[in-house]
Amino acid sequence: MRDLTALFCPKSVAIVGASRTPEKVGAIVLKNIISSGFTGKIYPVNPNADQIGSLACFKDTAGLPEVPDLAVIAIPVPGALEALTQVGEKGIKNAVIFSAGFKEIGEEGKKLEDELISIAQKYNINVLGPNCLGFVNNLCPINVTFGEVAAQTGNLRFISQSGAIASSLFDWCKSNGLGFSEFVTLGNKAVINENDVLEYFQGNKTPVTGSLPNVQPIGLYLESISRGADFLKLTSEITKTDPIFILKPGKTKAAAKAMQSHTGAIAGEDVVLEAVLTQAGVIRCQTLEDFFDLSRSFAWEDSPVGPKVAIISNAGGPAVISADAVTTEGLTLTEFDAQTHEKLLEVLPRSAAILNPVDVLGDALAQRYLQAAEIILPNAQVNALIVILTPQIMTQISQTATILGVLSQKYRKPIFCSFIGGSLVAEGEQKLNEYKIPSFRFPERAIRAVAQMWKFKHHQEEQAENAPAQPVDFRVDLKHSLRSSDLKNVLQKSPDSIQINEFLQSAGFSTPPTNRVSSLEQAKSFAQQFGYPVVLKLSSPGLLHKKKIGGVITGIENDAQLENAGYKISQAAVRLQQGTGQAVAIQIQKEVGPGVEVIIGVKQDPTFGSVLLFGAGGSFAELIADRNLHLLPMNISQAKKLVEKSKIFVALSGSNGDPVYVLDKLYETIIRLGQLAVSCPEIKEIEINPAIVTLDNVWAVDGKVVLAK
Amino acid sequence: MRDLTALFCPKSVAIVGASRTPEKVGAIVLKNIISSGFTGKIYPVNPNADQIGSLACFKDTAGLPEVPDLAVIAIPVPGALEALTQVGEKGIKNAVIFSAGFKEIGEEGKKLEDELISIAQKYNINVLGPNCLGFVNNLCPINVTFGEVAAQTGNLRFISQSGAIASSLFDWCKSNGLGFSEFVTLGNKAVINENDVLEYFQGNKTPVTGSLPNVQPIGLYLESISRGADFLKLTSEITKTDPIFILKPGKTKAAAKAMQSHTGAIAGEDVVLEAVLTQAGVIRCQTLEDFFDLSRSFAWEDSPVGPKVAIISNAGGPAVISADAVTTEGLTLTEFDAQTHEKLLEVLPRSAAILNPVDVLGDALAQRYLQAAEIILPNAQVNALIVILTPQIMTQISQTATILGVLSQKYRKPIFCSFIGGSLVAEGEQKLNEYKIPSFRFPERAIRAVAQMWKFKHHQEEQAENAPAQPVDFRVDLKHSLRSSDLKNVLQKSPDSIQINEFLQSAGFSTPPTNRVSSLEQAKSFAQQFGYPVVLKLSSPGLLHKKKIGGVITGIENDAQLENAGYKISQAAVRLQQGTGQAVAIQIQKEVGPGVEVIIGVKQDPTFGSVLLFGAGGSFAELIADRNLHLLPMNISQAKKLVEKSKIFVALSGSNGDPVYVLDKLYETIIRLGQLAVSCPEIKEIEINPAIVTLDNVWAVDGKVVLAK
Repeated sequence: MRDLTALFCPKSVAIVGASRTPEKVGAIVLKNIISSGFTGKIYPVNPNADQIGSLACFKDTAGLPEVPDLAVIAIPVPGALEALTQVGEKGIKNAVIFSAGFKEIGEEGKKLEDELISIAQKYNINVLGPNCLGFVNNLCPINVTFGEVAAQTGNLRFISQSGAIASSLFDWCKSNGLGFSEFVTLGNKAVINENDVLEYFQGNKTPVTGSLPNVQPIGLYLESISRGADFLKLTSEITKTDPIFILKPGKTKAAAKAMQSHTGAIAGEDVVLEAVLTQAGVIRCQTLEDFFDLSRSFAWEDSPVGPKVAIISNAGGPAVISADAVTTEGLTLTEFDAQTHEKLLEVLPRSAAILNPVDVLGDALAQRYLQAAEIILPNAQVNALIVILTPQIMTQISQTATILGVLSQKYRKPIFCSFIGGSLVAEGEQKLNEYKIPSFRFPERAIRAVAQMWKFKHHQEEQAENAPAQPVDFRVDLKHSLRSSDLKNVLQKSPDSIQINEFLQSAGFSTPPTNRVSSLEQAKSFAQQFGYPVVLKLSSPGLLHKKKIGGVITGIENDAQLENAGYKISQAAVRLQQGTGQAVAIQIQKEVGPGVEVIIGVKQDPTFGSVLLFGAGGSFAELIADRNLHLLPMNISQAKKLVEKSKIFVALSGSNGDPVYVLDKLYETIIRLGQLAVSCPEIKEIEINPAIVTLDNVWAVDGKVVLAK
Repeated sequence: MRDLTALFCPKSVAIVGASRTPEKVGAIVLKNIISSGFTGKIYPVNPNADQIGSLACFKDTAGLPEVPDLAVIAIPVPGALEALTQVGEKGIKNAVIFSAGFKEIGEEGKKLEDELISIAQKYNINVLGPNCLGFVNNLCPINVTFGEVAAQTGNLRFISQSGAIASSLFDWCKSNGLGFSEFVTLGNKAVINENDVLEYFQGNKTPVTGSLPNVQPIGLYLESISRGADFLKLTSEITKTDPIFILKPGKTKAAAKAMQSHTGAIAGEDVVLEAVLTQAGVIRCQTLEDFFDLSRSFAWEDSPVGPKVAIISNAGGPAVISADAVTTEGLTLTEFDAQTHEKLLEVLPRSAAILNPVDVLGDALAQRYLQAAEIILPNAQVNALIVILTPQIMTQISQTATILGVLSQKYRKPIFCSFIGGSLVAEGEQKLNEYKIPSFRFPERAIRAVAQMWKFKHHQEEQAENAPAQPVDFRVDLKHSLRSSDLKNVLQKSPDSIQINEFLQSAGFSTPPTNRVSSLEQAKSFAQQFGYPVVLKLSSPGLLHKKKIGGVITGIENDAQLENAGYKISQAAVRLQQGTGQAVAIQIQKEVGPGVEVIIGVKQDPTFGSVLLFGAGGSFAELIADRNLHLLPMNISQAKKLVEKSKIFVALSGSNGDPVYVLDKLYETIIRLGQLAVSCPEIKEIEINPAIVTLDNVWAVDGKVVLAK
């Protein structure tokens, strides 16, 4: 673990490349440090100056009168590397490098970055950057950036791989009166990555008191995740107390390509990340707007303790729109009780809508909003209140905002506002900002924020509930032959389906009887031994998608059909052999079922390690699009949850009219495959597809194994 | 067709309920009419005043010196109804009624609204409202609302069922320098509905010249659609020249409930509306934010003629985020040719990214944006340019905006901006507004707008391409017995599956041989006649979801299995009979296949009439969630498109390894069912499920028919 205390809250700082030319990075950062109210010592370093402003300037790092806690390197490559060496020689243990021109520009820059890393290792320096905007720590206080930062302090903490996102957030925070405690930009993450900073955050909690929610929400903008296992562990721990929300682009190939020319980030599979974030309780933002919205929401409001919301609006249209959004976002509209209805009837005009959403009508003055809110806020069935305002001719925009501010302090229940319009409503929004009530120009945005916050809270609750009852791990008895050392004997480099069948059987999976056959007689004798129906398949090392080339014939019911099928499959074998030049065998298998076809697989993700996949298998798997992932290891209650959240569960559980299939054996099969994959690191990828879940067994019918090179 | 010219552009107007008390509706509307620059005659009507301002006031409508073109009724119920009668008696043909308290408040109000409708019918009055905010016609000009309206004129046209949405838009348009020509609020649509106004818009085109796109975009906020067939026809016609975009809430039950207490709108099935809008080329907004964004985009920019966009950004992070959004929204990033790369290399710094997205780097001044844009805009492979700016320390925000404004005028290629931040970027946005360049605080919003505009353009192109080649309708020869008059003889009120089978067969569908059986012997003899495999099913009037109660046994291959299955199905029959008290028969059917199970159905939508459904059928239909709709009538090329856009098409077309099934027969079957439904209005609902598409035929295996009461 790195100790980053002296980096983020230094007592003394050297600025290598400090400058008197105002537009230079070395001048801006010096100005920022001074004007941020930093109370420690500042040492400008510049061979061509004796004095910068009122500060004495040093010719080189070696000549500094002490070993400062932090060195800021504000000179371009290749000078930056030389400077880092001097920093190391001086014994300085923390450095921020702004300079670009490293990994992000390609091969040449990659070499420079490798050099940077080895200097950092040699001298044991915590380097932030390169290619970053630096950091702000308002608690210290110190602003080590070359950006324009509003120094307002608040409970937010940010880690951003992009300096520009930071610049935009600085501007946005300032306009909205939103404050943060720390803002760290990572740049290329050559040495320090998000996990180091998260660990620092975790170890340096400074709970904020007063009217703010008592949390320190962390916003992450990351283009790549470093050391996935650490990330999962750290975030899972932090979300027990504080919300984390992340914007992580790279879902599409286009973005992945764009990222490479930016911070050189390489993206793993996005679905894996999605599963990790869900497991860790980290809220994922779909857009930059989500990220900005959640910054404000988590900073200013408590997460609602339930999904039930009430809406007060002075307009029917936006109320209707909001009702749609409430459902779409997975929240619910509280159904008011008779008492609430009566109270609302008392204070509202006859034609107002007293069902939720409450329409206080277009002529509502601030007082009417107050009356309705005073009835709704104390209602235990309301977890959050959403207030919508449209600027009608008599609407008291600013007064209404003030009243909501007072109510928020009085009831301490989350309130979210949407004042819809342009410059008329802007004044009200400003007032809401003063009272730290999150407001959104459009009601759907408010509702989305509430939903995300509830998602976070819900995860916390689930974790808290599950923690004590965490079941003892279900241990599968893997056969002796499957120790890693023996694995390569069991499996060829590129096994065919019969070898995979044997392998799966030896690992304790149920596999239908099968054999290699080279004549009709052999096939018939197999059918006599095990009974019809049977299946004929092609079998060849590495052969996938057999069905597409006519390489699977199912439902063979008798000798006549077997003869016919045997003829066809032989033809297919010849075609394949001619096409590929590889040996092709014919496999016969006892047909199992009826049942439900599923897929169970484990894959190695480059960032997060072993990931288990479960979902619908068989012909329509792609159409059903049922991919459910969980990071290994997993216990049986997690396996159960994974199956239950799958789409195919409806077929497995009997709720669509089918019988109830053997779910316990399915969980066991999943755990078994997971343990097999984890205990044999030689397996890069393993998949049972289809596994057929019947009334009394789970059959591993076919599969795929890829060994690590 | 209503002539609304005198309503929306009157030469004279009476205000019934005109008032001197400034906060009264009757005073506000009078003030609005005067200050909007209306040049016609204005007649205040109020029994208690001789003069209002400088205008002579009349005691009653009867006493007006002429028959004005328009009467504005600004008094509450029930007086409003009396006033309408007087308006009718005077011979005034157009009225706006602001008053609330009608259908939207329930049963009592509904009666008043019925009364209003009959008065309007008696005197043949075009009534706008009640419960509306009135209208603005900036071309006349006249502002007949009691809202605060900025009178800026522009090419937008709005129809809104909600007055509050109008108020918000007025405020937003004003803040953003956005102008409209007409804004009509509909309220309860007692007499005039959106179709009447659309028809008026269609007949009153006032093309705007100059730098604006030469279109008159129409924005619709509707909670219900009136006369669906008219709506489809009108919008399909208008979108040939002008964009229409709509916000229509009511997707969820919660919203439908909220709507009823608002404008009393009742929602049909949202999926039907979705299909209608797609057919008509109307762009559907998912959120209010979409609606506001598209207002500005369609008003100020030409729709891009292709999906290829280029991005210029001064920051890598937002560029990466945008690359994701481009793909997610169905656009593509132009791949620049070598020449473009070279040109960019010449003008940009070495570490800039010259692939698309182009990163001009954080230190880019306005000039560098200009240089990059000058290279990219003339590129024929770029259909729209998206410019992203983050406020970094040296960023020239306002100058960059100005440069983009000049470039927009020079190249006349759509430019969309996202300046990300707070108050720093606001100035730039203001400048962009002046140049009428759509800007968005978040890049994903800009990209979404471009995608929606391209969707509109693409629809236009498709329509233009298809129009001349519209194939002659494919006529199915429906059997004589299926004339409407005979239908009730063919079908019982609640037919069982055997009757439905007979009915489908008589309508020309291929049905597998089937029969009612009451003994094992009968079943065996059926199997002998038609061959194994066979299916046994329960058959009872109105019985659906047979499978869920064990009422379907498939794959019966021989006498022994038939015996076993016969025993099971008899037991199920007894259970069902005991449970329901209804007669239950057992049906035997020749099993067809192998093939792909699909569903083909026709349903009557209350708004839009007959809608045909096609999609995946069988056990996994719900999981695949493959509902594709088309309004009837349809031609064979439309049937083809419907099938091609379905998810199950991948299985039908052989691209997943299956053989190619008999698509022509499938199209024919679809057309046949559509024609059957249209020619027999007694059929409320008809469904073939499953239809099994094999290599040479489409088999109607089971179905459902519901007759209108």
